[in-house]
Amino acid sequence: VDEFSLIYDLIAPAAGARSDVVLGIGDDGALLRPPGDDVLVAVVDTLVEGVHFPVGFPPEDLGYRAVAVNFSDLAAMGAEPRWITLALTMPRADAGWLQAFMGGLRAACAPTGTALVGGDMTRGPLCVTVQALGSVPAGLALTRSGARPGDRIYVSGCLGDAAAGLAVLLDTAVDRASETCLVERFARPTPRLALGRALRGLATACIDVSDGLVGDIAHVARASGCAALLDIDAIPLSAALMAGRWSSGQRRDFALAGGDDYELCFTLPPDVGDARSPAWPSGVPVTRIGEMHPGPPAVLGRDASGRVVPLGSGYRHF
Amino acid sequence: VDEFSLIYDLIAPAAGARSDVVLGIGDDGALLRPPGDDVLVAVVDTLVEGVHFPVGFPPEDLGYRAVAVNFSDLAAMGAEPRWITLALTMPRADAGWLQAFMGGLRAACAPTGTALVGGDMTRGPLCVTVQALGSVPAGLALTRSGARPGDRIYVSGCLGDAAAGLAVLLDTAVDRASETCLVERFARPTPRLALGRALRGLATACIDVSDGLVGDIAHVARASGCAALLDIDAIPLSAALMAGRWSSGQRRDFALAGGDDYELCFTLPPDVGDARSPAWPSGVPVTRIGEMHPGPPAVLGRDASGRVVPLGSGYRHF
Repeated sequence: VDEFSLIYDLIAPAAGARSDVVLGIGDDGALLRPPGDDVLVAVVDTLVEGVHFPVGFPPEDLGYRAVAVNFSDLAAMGAEPRWITLALTMPRADAGWLQAFMGGLRAACAPTGTALVGGDMTRGPLCVTVQALGSVPAGLALTRSGARPGDRIYVSGCLGDAAAGLAVLLDTAVDRASETCLVERFARPTPRLALGRALRGLATACIDVSDGLVGDIAHVARASGCAALLDIDAIPLSAALMAGRWSSGQRRDFALAGGDDYELCFTLPPDVGDARSPAWPSGVPVTRIGEMHPGPPAVLGRDASGRVVPLGSGYRHF
Repeated sequence: VDEFSLIYDLIAPAAGARSDVVLGIGDDGALLRPPGDDVLVAVVDTLVEGVHFPVGFPPEDLGYRAVAVNFSDLAAMGAEPRWITLALTMPRADAGWLQAFMGGLRAACAPTGTALVGGDMTRGPLCVTVQALGSVPAGLALTRSGARPGDRIYVSGCLGDAAAGLAVLLDTAVDRASETCLVERFARPTPRLALGRALRGLATACIDVSDGLVGDIAHVARASGCAALLDIDAIPLSAALMAGRWSSGQRRDFALAGGDDYELCFTLPPDVGDARSPAWPSGVPVTRIGEMHPGPPAVLGRDASGRVVPLGSGYRHF
């Protein structure tokens, strides 16, 4: 099977149509109508087999996840997705595998009407790079650099589920069926696009929790030039995680350093009100987990007794 | 060494500045000012170690080549580069290697003032994906689909050098110094951006020669719905290739099927004049190598005796 018949038979039909795609898959490049006065947002994420997902990870989940992690970056900028490109390296041309992969990719794109507009398929160790292009009204993009002392720190959803889910996936001794929803949180993260939009003009800083809460909030602290103080016991944990076989220390490690949850962590100045109030414009639950303080960039944790300790810095890629 | 210190120390300084970059490397995504009325052009290419370049390939050449092959796709659309993102997967964080790689990437970007605006660094088998974003005035993009019977087929520069250069690289028995310029053609291809711009509004179809002339012109034939007839003996070969130790059959194979030359192959209707005339608006030599004919999509070759034979279909990725 050659690259080109795979592209035309399996990929082009899953591309999706949009009026701002002048020319999609099948030429040297894609032609795209720019988003008027909005600003373009470009994000890119790579998933490597054995590093970011286990060997044997289902292709439909891989396709979904490769898109979702990029949409999560767009959400953290307050942006809406428009187009993606796919660079897929795989050991051999396996039509069944590719069809499942494309099904997952399509499922992740469909809710936002995002179109796959181009890509490259190559032979080699399994590795997926998706680039997503989106847009945000000029001046309203969320960044990491605007947090100020006194701003409150919030996080959406629950943390630690995805790390627990990955642990379940890697532990062959375990009955996975009982922990499906944790595995699902790893396999098919939900990008918080609506929340990101709702935060435009309100949040002073925003980041998605991909490498682990502490490491990610450390980026905000560094870019904003102040310190983050987290109330460890306030960090939201799911019922599924609490019901699992993990110690409280393991649960805390999953939540603080596990990563892969793709929730949004953001800061709000005290005068915009409490993001937990029923009037808050987003359907996603959010939890207040700390506040920014004056001082050199750092991440500190405060436990139930009020004791403050420095926290580590999250996932390292090398 | 962690990912983030590598990014800030080695990558950010090589990013390049542009007035249309609102926010570059260092946040969840890049913020880019769209190109007014122009159409955006998105291209992406992956280079995998051992597949697209040999193990031990110099990192400075790899960085250069990863950009140049993408710019070649933009050239084939008549577009100008604006921004790139870099997804770099490498087995370990090697600062010396990365510095050399970034030097090559920067050298390829500098002539056009293209900025590196984001990326992702991951651990795994060596693999580079660059996405380039460019622009072209609306309605003037070159595609593969407009060639008509009677159009003349041209190619820029010479073909076969890069394939010969790769053969030199892979052949440890050979004295490489004597064939430096062939190796250079593989290692540092020249994207034909000025020629692509000059062809706007003139060429009926255009493609870059990346997979091999026959395979690439077959895309034009398929997209345009007609046949391509190549005059085999008209295909331009360099003095370096002619001086090499290859048989005439090997040279022909390099030129017809070798790929990696990143020249432009394009079609002109008879009434726009001959692209070889001195009045032609591009500094790159071009050669007429055949013409389009009525009939089902196919690539045919005509030898010096006038005999017409079907040709194969070029590089297969799997």
